[in-house]
Amino acid sequence: MRPSSSGSDPGLFGAVLARGGAADEVSDRAWMSALLEVESALATAAADVGIVDRSAADAVVNASNDATSFDIDAIGAAAAAAGTPVLPLVQALRAAVPASAREAVHIGATSQDVLDTAMMLVARRALDPTTSDLDLAAKVAADLARRHRDTEMAGRTLGQQAVPVTFGLVCAQWMAGLDGATARLQAVARALPVQYGGAAGTRATADGAGLDLAVHLAARLALRDPGLPWHTIRLPIGDLAGALGTGCGIVAKIAGDVVLLAQTEIGELSDADPTRGGSSAMAHKANPVAAVCARACAHRGPGLVATLLSAMEQEHQRAAGAWHSEWRTLCDLLEATGSAAAWLRDCLQHLVVHPDRMAQNLTANLEGVGTGDAAALIDFALREHARPR
Amino acid sequence: MRPSSSGSDPGLFGAVLARGGAADEVSDRAWMSALLEVESALATAAADVGIVDRSAADAVVNASNDATSFDIDAIGAAAAAAGTPVLPLVQALRAAVPASAREAVHIGATSQDVLDTAMMLVARRALDPTTSDLDLAAKVAADLARRHRDTEMAGRTLGQQAVPVTFGLVCAQWMAGLDGATARLQAVARALPVQYGGAAGTRATADGAGLDLAVHLAARLALRDPGLPWHTIRLPIGDLAGALGTGCGIVAKIAGDVVLLAQTEIGELSDADPTRGGSSAMAHKANPVAAVCARACAHRGPGLVATLLSAMEQEHQRAAGAWHSEWRTLCDLLEATGSAAAWLRDCLQHLVVHPDRMAQNLTANLEGVGTGDAAALIDFALREHARPR
Amino acid sequence: MRPSSSGSDPGLFGAVLARGGAADEVSDRAWMSALLEVESALATAAADVGIVDRSAADAVVNASNDATSFDIDAIGAAAAAAGTPVLPLVQALRAAVPASAREAVHIGATSQDVLDTAMMLVARRALDPTTSDLDLAAKVAADLARRHRDTEMAGRTLGQQAVPVTFGLVCAQWMAGLDGATARLQAVARALPVQYGGAAGTRATADGAGLDLAVHLAARLALRDPGLPWHTIRLPIGDLAGALGTGCGIVAKIAGDVVLLAQTEIGELSDADPTRGGSSAMAHKANPVAAVCARACAHRGPGLVATLLSAMEQEHQRAAGAWHSEWRTLCDLLEATGSAAAWLRDCLQHLVVHPDRMAQNLTANLEGVGTGDAAALIDFALREHARPR
Amino acid sequence: MRPSSSGSDPGLFGAVLARGGAADEVSDRAWMSALLEVESALATAAADVGIVDRSAADAVVNASNDATSFDIDAIGAAAAAAGTPVLPLVQALRAAVPASAREAVHIGATSQDVLDTAMMLVARRALDPTTSDLDLAAKVAADLARRHRDTEMAGRTLGQQAVPVTFGLVCAQWMAGLDGATARLQAVARALPVQYGGAAGTRATADGAGLDLAVHLAARLALRDPGLPWHTIRLPIGDLAGALGTGCGIVAKIAGDVVLLAQTEIGELSDADPTRGGSSAMAHKANPVAAVCARACAHRGPGLVATLLSAMEQEHQRAAGAWHSEWRTLCDLLEATGSAAAWLRDCLQHLVVHPDRMAQNLTANLEGVGTGDAAALIDFALREHARPR
Repeated sequence: MRPSSSGSDPGLFGAVLARGGAADEVSDRAWMSALLEVESALATAAADVGIVDRSAADAVVNASNDATSFDIDAIGAAAAAAGTPVLPLVQALRAAVPASAREAVHIGATSQDVLDTAMMLVARRALDPTTSDLDLAAKVAADLARRHRDTEMAGRTLGQQAVPVTFGLVCAQWMAGLDGATARLQAVARALPVQYGGAAGTRATADGAGLDLAVHLAARLALRDPGLPWHTIRLPIGDLAGALGTGCGIVAKIAGDVVLLAQTEIGELSDADPTRGGSSAMAHKANPVAAVCARACAHRGPGLVATLLSAMEQEHQRAAGAWHSEWRTLCDLLEATGSAAAWLRDCLQHLVVHPDRMAQNLTANLEGVGTGDAAALIDFALREHARPR
Repeated sequence: MRPSSSGSDPGLFGAVLARGGAADEVSDRAWMSALLEVESALATAAADVGIVDRSAADAVVNASNDATSFDIDAIGAAAAAAGTPVLPLVQALRAAVPASAREAVHIGATSQDVLDTAMMLVARRALDPTTSDLDLAAKVAADLARRHRDTEMAGRTLGQQAVPVTFGLVCAQWMAGLDGATARLQAVARALPVQYGGAAGTRATADGAGLDLAVHLAARLALRDPGLPWHTIRLPIGDLAGALGTGCGIVAKIAGDVVLLAQTEIGELSDADPTRGGSSAMAHKANPVAAVCARACAHRGPGLVATLLSAMEQEHQRAAGAWHSEWRTLCDLLEATGSAAAWLRDCLQHLVVHPDRMAQNLTANLEGVGTGDAAALIDFALREHARPR
Repeated sequence: MRPSSSGSDPGLFGAVLARGGAADEVSDRAWMSALLEVESALATAAADVGIVDRSAADAVVNASNDATSFDIDAIGAAAAAAGTPVLPLVQALRAAVPASAREAVHIGATSQDVLDTAMMLVARRALDPTTSDLDLAAKVAADLARRHRDTEMAGRTLGQQAVPVTFGLVCAQWMAGLDGATARLQAVARALPVQYGGAAGTRATADGAGLDLAVHLAARLALRDPGLPWHTIRLPIGDLAGALGTGCGIVAKIAGDVVLLAQTEIGELSDADPTRGGSSAMAHKANPVAAVCARACAHRGPGLVATLLSAMEQEHQRAAGAWHSEWRTLCDLLEATGSAAAWLRDCLQHLVVHPDRMAQNLTANLEGVGTGDAAALIDFALREHARPR
Repeated sequence: MRPSSSGSDPGLFGAVLARGGAADEVSDRAWMSALLEVESALATAAADVGIVDRSAADAVVNASNDATSFDIDAIGAAAAAAGTPVLPLVQALRAAVPASAREAVHIGATSQDVLDTAMMLVARRALDPTTSDLDLAAKVAADLARRHRDTEMAGRTLGQQAVPVTFGLVCAQWMAGLDGATARLQAVARALPVQYGGAAGTRATADGAGLDLAVHLAARLALRDPGLPWHTIRLPIGDLAGALGTGCGIVAKIAGDVVLLAQTEIGELSDADPTRGGSSAMAHKANPVAAVCARACAHRGPGLVATLLSAMEQEHQRAAGAWHSEWRTLCDLLEATGSAAAWLRDCLQHLVVHPDRMAQNLTANLEGVGTGDAAALIDFALREHARPR
C-alpha cells in the first residue's frame, strides 16, 4: 500500500525503482496539489466567464492554495464510497470556503473532469524531469560520440564480432535514440488537454458558458483546449502510453549495451562512481549498478502500456472500471520511465571508456576492415542533435 | 513515490485500488519484517547445522525481532549504491548485534537469497487475505445459487437475450470460477520455496553445510525446500504470475456481469450498501461501486503478469535488471489481485437480487423454453463446492 | 503455421479476425514483393551513385519484378540456417541474374537492411486500407452526428443513467476519436524510414557512397531517409506500436458502445445487415456481429504492443532474438488493427438507430435536464472534422 | 493473412518462428479435424445416451471422418456472417449426411461448445510435441550436467565474474527449469476439459440427457468432464496461458545464457551444427542461430499471455468479442512456445562446450574460491530428474 507521505522518502525500493524527479510528481501530495489547482482554476475560469462572482472564485482560490491543509488519508478513505477521491475533496473544499462561495466550488464539473485534468498536470510535471534527464543523457552521449569519433571497437551482431565500428558511432546512435524519445515525450506533453464535460459530456450545468469556460480553464492551467470532452475517448492516454513505452525501450537498449560492454570478459566500459557497485562479499566486483537499475525500471514499461491501452475501451459517458485502472498505472509508468531516465543519465555521466580493451578485443578476423561511413555518420548525427528543436 | 509508512494509511487512491488485506502485506514495513525474519531464520538454521554458535544466532534473532528499530528510509536510500536494500540492511543488523555475533549475520548468503526468500514470505502473506476474500465470495455465490436455484432470467449471448437460464446457475458458475481461482492460488502458496545459494548458487561459503542449512531454513520459515537454488530459474515467479492473473480474470468476469446486470435498463442486480455509490450531482444514481472497483483492480493484472513473465529471462547467476524489475511488479500484482478480491467479496455480500426485474426482462421470444439441466448443474456444483479441499 | 499462399484466402478464422485490406499486405506474398522491391531499389540506387553499372542494376530490377518466380517455401525453409529469409533470397536473386550482374545484388547491405526496409513498406501498405477504413468510419460517424444532432438519449456513467446526452454528441466523439487515431497512423506512415547500414551500421562495403546511396534508396522507395541507421534504435517500431495500439483502443471503445447500446433491453442500435448476425438455434436473435468482431480484433492490440516495446532492447549492432520477434508480431498488430477498422466501418455503415427506444429508455429521473452544449459541441466537432488535413 | 493450407509449408518466416510440431497442430487443417472430431463424438455420445439413433450417429461419424472433404476457405468465408466458422461447418456437415441423420448433427450444442472443445483438442495436440521437445532438451541438459559435473567456469552476477561455478551446475539448473516447465504443461494438458452447455449453458435442448452426454463426450475425446459448462468461466484458458508463459520464460532464460556464453569474447559455448549460423558477408562468424531463434519465439509469450488473461472477462453466457480474441492468440502462443522448445532442444543437442575457454576466462580474482555444494547439488538434481513423473 502506498501511503500519503510527501513523496520525499524513498522507502525500501524507491532509490532503485523510483529515482529522479518524476516519482515526487506522481506522489499523493502532488496529486492533491494538482486536484486543488484544477478546482482553483475552474472557479477562476467560471468568474472569467461570469457565472460566479469573482469574490467567490477568489475564496476558492485561497482555500485551494494550501494543499497541506487537506487530509489526504481522510479524503482517500472516503473515496471508497464514490469510487473516486474527488467527491470527498470537493466536500472538504466546500467546507473550507465561506457559505457564499460554496456554489463556486466544482461548478458544472464532474469528478472525472477534475481528476482527468489533474492527471494531465501530474503527467506534464512528471515528464519534465524525465525529458530533462533524457536530454542530459543525450548530451553526454553526444560528447562521447565526439571524443570517440575514431575509437575503433568490434561491431557485434547476435553477440558475435562482425566488422569494426567506432564507439563514437555507437554513442551517436544512442544519442539519436534519446533525442527521438525526448522529442516524442515533449510533443505529447505540449498537447496534453484539459477535460471539462460535466456529468456526461454536455456541460449541462455550466449555464451555457461551457465552451468559454473550457477555453479559460485551459489557459489558466496552460493545457490544450481540445474543444470536445474526451472523458471516454482516451487519445491522450494512448499518446502518453506510446511515448513513455518508446522512452523505456530506448533506455533499455542503451543500458543493455552498457551492461554487455561492461562484462568482465569484455571490459570496454565501466562505471566510475566510487560510491556504487561494490559487493560486500566480492571486493573485486564493480557492478554497473546504474545501467542495471535503468534496465530494471525500463522493463516495467511494456506491461503498463498494455494495461493503459486495454483501458481505452471505456463505456458510454464514463467507464465502469477502465478509467479507475488508469490512475496508478499511468503514475507507475511515469515513475518507471522517469527513474529509467534518471539512472541512464547517471550511468552515462559516470561512464569510463576503455579504448585499450576495445582495441585488444578486436579479433584478427576484423583486421583490415574499415569503419566505412562511421565518422561521417557521427558528424551528421551531431549536427542533427545540435539543431534547435 | 511510495514512501516507507506502515502501510496502514490508504493514501489518495488506496481505498479504491488497494483494498483488503494484501496491500498491508506488500508494504515496506511488511518487507522489512520479512527480510529480518529471513536473516533471523538463517542465523538459527546456521546454528542448527553447527556452523555458528547458538548464542550468536540468538543475538541475531533478538536484533531482528523489532523491525521498527531499522530505519527503512535510510536503508532504502543506501540501496542505490548496491542496487538492493539487503546490503545496507545486513550492515545495520551487524551493527545491532554484539561483535561476537557479527559472523552469524547473513552467513553464506547473498543479497538475492534474502530478498527472494523474503519475497516468498511477502507473497504468501498477501495471498492469505486474498484467498480468504475469494473464498468468502464463493460462499456468498453458493448461497445465492441455492436461493435462486429456480429464479429464471434471460441468458444473454453477445449481449442479446438467447434462452432462459437461472440466476442460480449464473451464481454456481461464478462460485466454480472463484473456487478454481482460490485453489490455484493456494496450491502456489503452499509450494513457495526458500532460496539459498550464496554468491552464485554454489553455497561456497556455507562450509559444506549448505544442503542441511537450506532444509533447516525452509523448515523455520515454513517454506518448501526446492533442493536446488532458483536464483535465475524463476518458476516460482511464473507460477505466482499465472495464478494471480487467472484470479484477476475470474474477478473481472464476475464484476463485469454485476455491472451489466445492474445497468439502469436491466436492473436485475443492485448494490445494497447505503454508504456507497451515491453521486452528489445525481441523487437518483446508485452506482455499483464495488463491482466497478473490483474490475479496475483486476484489469491491472494482465500487464503486470506480462512484465513478470518477460523478467523470467535472467542472465547467468544473477540478472542485470530483470530480477530488480520483479520486486514492485509482483507486489503490485499481489495488491491488485487482493484488492479485486476484497471488492468482489464486498460486492457479492451486498448484492440485492431483483427477481421481478429478471422475470419482466424475459422477452416473449424466450417463453416456453425451459432451463434444461440448470437445477441439476447447480446441485452438482454445490456438492463440488462443499467438498473438503 | 501460416503458409505461403497468396493471402487471398481467408482460412478458417480470417473472415472474422483478418478482415479488410491489411491482411493481404502482411501476407508472405506481400513480404516477398517488398523484399524484392528493396533489392531492386538498392541496385538502382547503387547505379544512381555510380558504384554498379546501370545495366547490372537493370538486370537486378528485371529479376526482382516477378515475385512469383521466387519459391517462398523453399526460401523460407532455408531461412532456418541463417535465422532470416534474406540470405536465401539473395542467393536466389543472384542465381536469377546474369553472372555479370551478380555483384550488383544486395550491394553493401546486410540482411537486416533489406528486411527492415521491406518491413516499412509492408507497414505502410497495411496502414493504407486501415486508415482508409478508419476514415470512412469517421465519415459515417459524422453523418450520424449531423442527423442525430438533437436525438436525446440517456447519458450513462458506470452503466447507470446519469443525465441526457444526444446520440449526435456520442457520434461526434466517436468521430473525433477516429480522426485522431487516423491522424496518428498517417503521421507514423509518412515518417517510416529506410534502413541501410551494412553489416554493423558503418556501410563499410558501400565504397564510401553510403550516404548518397541511402538518399537514393529512400527516394526510390518513397521512404524517409533518417540519416543514421536505426538497426538497433527501434524508434520506428515504437511509433508504429503506439499508434496501432491507440487505433485499437479507439475501435474497441466505439464497438463496445455499439454492443452495449444493442443489448436486447436497451435496443437503441442494431445491425441492419441482413446477411449477418442470425443464429441457427435462435431465430429471434440479431447479433451485432460486426461490433463483436471489431472488439475481438482490437483486443489483440495491447499484448502485441507490449511485445514490440519489450523488443526495443536490441543488443549492440544486431539483436539476438528481439529483432526476429518483431516480424510476425508487427504483422499481427497491423492485421488486427486493420481488421478492427474494417469491421468497425462495416458496423457503422450498417447501423440502425432507434430514436424511439432512446426516448423510451430515458428514465423519469432525467426529465427536465437539458443537453447543455451538446449541439454546439457537435457543430464544433464537425467543423474540425471537415478541416483539410 | 493466414490461409488454409495443410500447415506443412513453412512460408517465409515459419522455419524461424514456427519450428517444431506445434505449428502443424494449430493449422486450419488441424482445427478442421478437431471441429469435426467434436461433432463426431457429440453424435456418438448422443447415441450412447439414447437421444439419437446409433445409425444416424454413425452417419455423422462417417461424414466427419474425412476432414479434407470440407472446404476450409468456403466455411471460413461464411464465418463472417455468424462470427464463427462453426455454423457454416454444421451446415456443411448436415448436407453431407442422409436426411435421416441430420437431426443427429450438433445435437443440443451451440457453436461455442464445439469450438471450445476443439480448441482443447488443438491445445493438447500442440502441447504434445512441445513437452516432448522440452523433455528432450532436459535430457540433454542432464547429460551435460553429468559430463561437466566438475568443469569449473566463472559464475557471473550482473554480467560480472563473481565466484566460480561449474558448467554442470548451470546445466542442472537449466534441466530443473525445463522439467518444471514440462510438468506444468503436462498437468494443464491432462486437465483440459470438454465444453458442453448448449445455447446458454443449461443444455436446454439435450432432452434432459445433458449430464450423461457430457460424460460420454468427454470420454470419447479423452478430455476431462468438468461437470459444469465453462463457456464464460475461462479457467482452462488461464491455466494454458500461465503454463505456456512460464515455458517461454524458461526457454528464454536458457537460450539467453547460451547467447551470452557464445559471445566471441567469452566463447565457452558454440553451436556445432555446420548447416547453420554462417554469414555470407562474414565467413568467420558462427552465429548461435538456434539460441537466437529460441529467444525470438519465447519473447512472443508474455504479450500473448496478457491478451488471453484480459480476455477472461467474458460477459454473461457468451462474450461479445473476448471469446473470439482467444482463438488465434492461443494458437500463436502454442506455436510460439512449441517453436521456442524445438529450437532450444536443437540448440542444446548441438551445443559444443569449450572447457578450455571456461578455464581461461576465470579471472585471478576467482582463484582459490571453491565451488561449494555444486557437485552435491548436481547429484541431487539428477536424482530428481530421474524420478518417474
